[in-house]
Amino acid sequence: MKVLVINCGSSSLKYQLIDMEGEKVLCKGLCERIGMEGSSITHKVGDGKWEESIPFPTHTEAFAAVVKMMTTGEGKVIDHMSDVTAIGHRVVHGGEKIKESCLVTEDLIKTIEELAPLAPLHNPAGVLGLRAAQEVFGKDVPNVAVFDTAFHSTMPPKAYMYALPYEYYEKYGVRRYGFHGTSHRYVSKAAAQYLGKDPSELKIVTCHLGNGSSIAAVDGGKVLDTSMGMTPLAGLIMGTRSGDMDPSIPGFLMNATGMTAAEIDNVMNKKSGFLGVSGVSSDNRDVSAAADQGNQRAHLANEMLSYQIKKFVGGYAAAMGGLDCIVFCGGIGENDPHVRQNVCSDMEFLGVKINPEQNKIRGLDINDITGEGSRVKVLAICTNEELMIARDTKEIVDAL
Amino acid sequence: MKVLVINCGSSSLKYQLIDMEGEKVLCKGLCERIGMEGSSITHKVGDGKWEESIPFPTHTEAFAAVVKMMTTGEGKVIDHMSDVTAIGHRVVHGGEKIKESCLVTEDLIKTIEELAPLAPLHNPAGVLGLRAAQEVFGKDVPNVAVFDTAFHSTMPPKAYMYALPYEYYEKYGVRRYGFHGTSHRYVSKAAAQYLGKDPSELKIVTCHLGNGSSIAAVDGGKVLDTSMGMTPLAGLIMGTRSGDMDPSIPGFLMNATGMTAAEIDNVMNKKSGFLGVSGVSSDNRDVSAAADQGNQRAHLANEMLSYQIKKFVGGYAAAMGGLDCIVFCGGIGENDPHVRQNVCSDMEFLGVKINPEQNKIRGLDINDITGEGSRVKVLAICTNEELMIARDTKEIVDAL
Repeated sequence: MKVLVINCGSSSLKYQLIDMEGEKVLCKGLCERIGMEGSSITHKVGDGKWEESIPFPTHTEAFAAVVKMMTTGEGKVIDHMSDVTAIGHRVVHGGEKIKESCLVTEDLIKTIEELAPLAPLHNPAGVLGLRAAQEVFGKDVPNVAVFDTAFHSTMPPKAYMYALPYEYYEKYGVRRYGFHGTSHRYVSKAAAQYLGKDPSELKIVTCHLGNGSSIAAVDGGKVLDTSMGMTPLAGLIMGTRSGDMDPSIPGFLMNATGMTAAEIDNVMNKKSGFLGVSGVSSDNRDVSAAADQGNQRAHLANEMLSYQIKKFVGGYAAAMGGLDCIVFCGGIGENDPHVRQNVCSDMEFLGVKINPEQNKIRGLDINDITGEGSRVKVLAICTNEELMIARDTKEIVDAL
Repeated sequence: MKVLVINCGSSSLKYQLIDMEGEKVLCKGLCERIGMEGSSITHKVGDGKWEESIPFPTHTEAFAAVVKMMTTGEGKVIDHMSDVTAIGHRVVHGGEKIKESCLVTEDLIKTIEELAPLAPLHNPAGVLGLRAAQEVFGKDVPNVAVFDTAFHSTMPPKAYMYALPYEYYEKYGVRRYGFHGTSHRYVSKAAAQYLGKDPSELKIVTCHLGNGSSIAAVDGGKVLDTSMGMTPLAGLIMGTRSGDMDPSIPGFLMNATGMTAAEIDNVMNKKSGFLGVSGVSSDNRDVSAAADQGNQRAHLANEMLSYQIKKFVGGYAAAMGGLDCIVFCGGIGENDPHVRQNVCSDMEFLGVKINPEQNKIRGLDINDITGEGSRVKVLAICTNEELMIARDTKEIVDAL
């Protein structure tokens, strides 16, 4: 079975074709600037890479280009579109109703559309991708939707409710949903497998640290709590996102600066985080390089990240009543040994010790950086949301 | 030396006269509805209580009534106003500049006024109290200002900075300040004294839980972090305050409900917390009673409080790299054994065990509820902000 994995933004389409026999990536690529001037596709097979400028008025033309790239020319990996057995889509917001991956139906698309107020940028883009896939591949190829929120649907009310008037929850769905669920699920399962345990036996804190970052408390295989909230703005300092703050600050800043609520929202999402604190870059690597050269604000951004992660790890350990394993994943979690070192330093009281030499090693799917005598296992795991989506898709299609 | 301790709200004046020999409260009372119809004073000496309806156009007339109550009639405790050696005032916001209690000067009053944008309800009221005290007692009686924020001034930037554009910190002072500092200071010192240790040897999490609640990480006698933020809205669920939430929610609610930023701010401060979640009351006792009778939303509000405290305790233990002592104080912290029980349950991994029988005992200044074999000491301590203010006032006046 070959599964095409799709991740649509409002003007982009990322794809991977995975052969589920051996879970091998046959090709992957990206369509950019859909609906804009200068749109293009980049297609990769192994070390080969092809780029082409093609007008993409909509996601439909982008899908057609993906099919063309996969079935013709030098980057060809399948003979015909019909070799794609099923398509798995990343969808950001499943709200409260959707607790697992689902076969795409008209009803499901309606539900995703209805949830657009909670994810105004992401859910409409997800629907565009679903519609375009149906149009290009025809109704006979099953589509599966895998939701960023679904793995977090096990949170209890004490963790997901905000202390606002209850009617805001009932009327507008104001609550914590959490995101990056597919990544937290992948790495928590991978950790359990690596440790030779059933997920039900483990209390794991999973730290997905990238351009967007979130942390989850995975207790017995189920999410108890997570750092992102109603939206992906909440939680940790991120590339350009502020994470948590005193909720009176947006209103204070409206008064102080004369900005509108929408402008403040844009600042909190696009101009804050590493970029806002350091003034250097939204990229953790640039910020670290600047900190190494003595930039104090860059150093502060670095410190804030590690300190905030540390507090979440301790807080979630308390929430779970124990801690067996810390997992780092995502661009920063997989590649930045300093962050892992800083988070795990002075954590002996929690039973956490890492091996500083092993921590420096890169390029492993799973890097076990647990130190000697550490009660808590510490792992850096390469997350693979695409593979998780493909596995869910296969499982649902197999059961049809 | 007799010190008059003053806590002014915009329409209220609370006072205590403390004889510093033996730190004995000679009298205490409250002036209410200052500047409104139906203003009155309540004056207490031991078990005696006197109430009188008096028009208080301003805080000055209220101060005059306090003097009259203290020096004449049945509630008399001193012969003459001049028996008051000094006056200690609670002031809410000291901003970044003020790191300790200060003798009141014109410059200091200006600084407190300049900080009004950060505490628009509290700092102007504090200034009213300072001016009225000067007017009634004359310039020869020294006034000392004790700031809610001062004990938190030791926080490092990684704890007090928000991940917003750095200019908001520079231009508008947007950062975490923390409040209830006088209470956190009092109980952390009392805990160290009780444990026979120097504060520098201890890692303490102090939980001030009342109508307003905050938690502090006191590491070696100095605050490392605290749950309140730029304003007293942040942190835990409180009586009517929401505490922390995804910072995109205020803007979302403006869109969804059509409310203004000021209206949302009012909802977050006055209609949220226990009241908003339970729909029953802002008072923890009413909420607990309703929960006992099966009210699910009241039960949820209870659960949220204990769960959030638990996460802060774990998070701050991680921030400090260890935990020696948990202190509960404030109306809820001192009087609600269920909250203490729930916070400390399943915390054995942190070395926390409590004695459930001792936990039920009430009315002790310090209730040591540490369980057998617990590595972490757990104490319920009656906080005494007035005494702390009086001590600071004495120390400053003694050094004049």
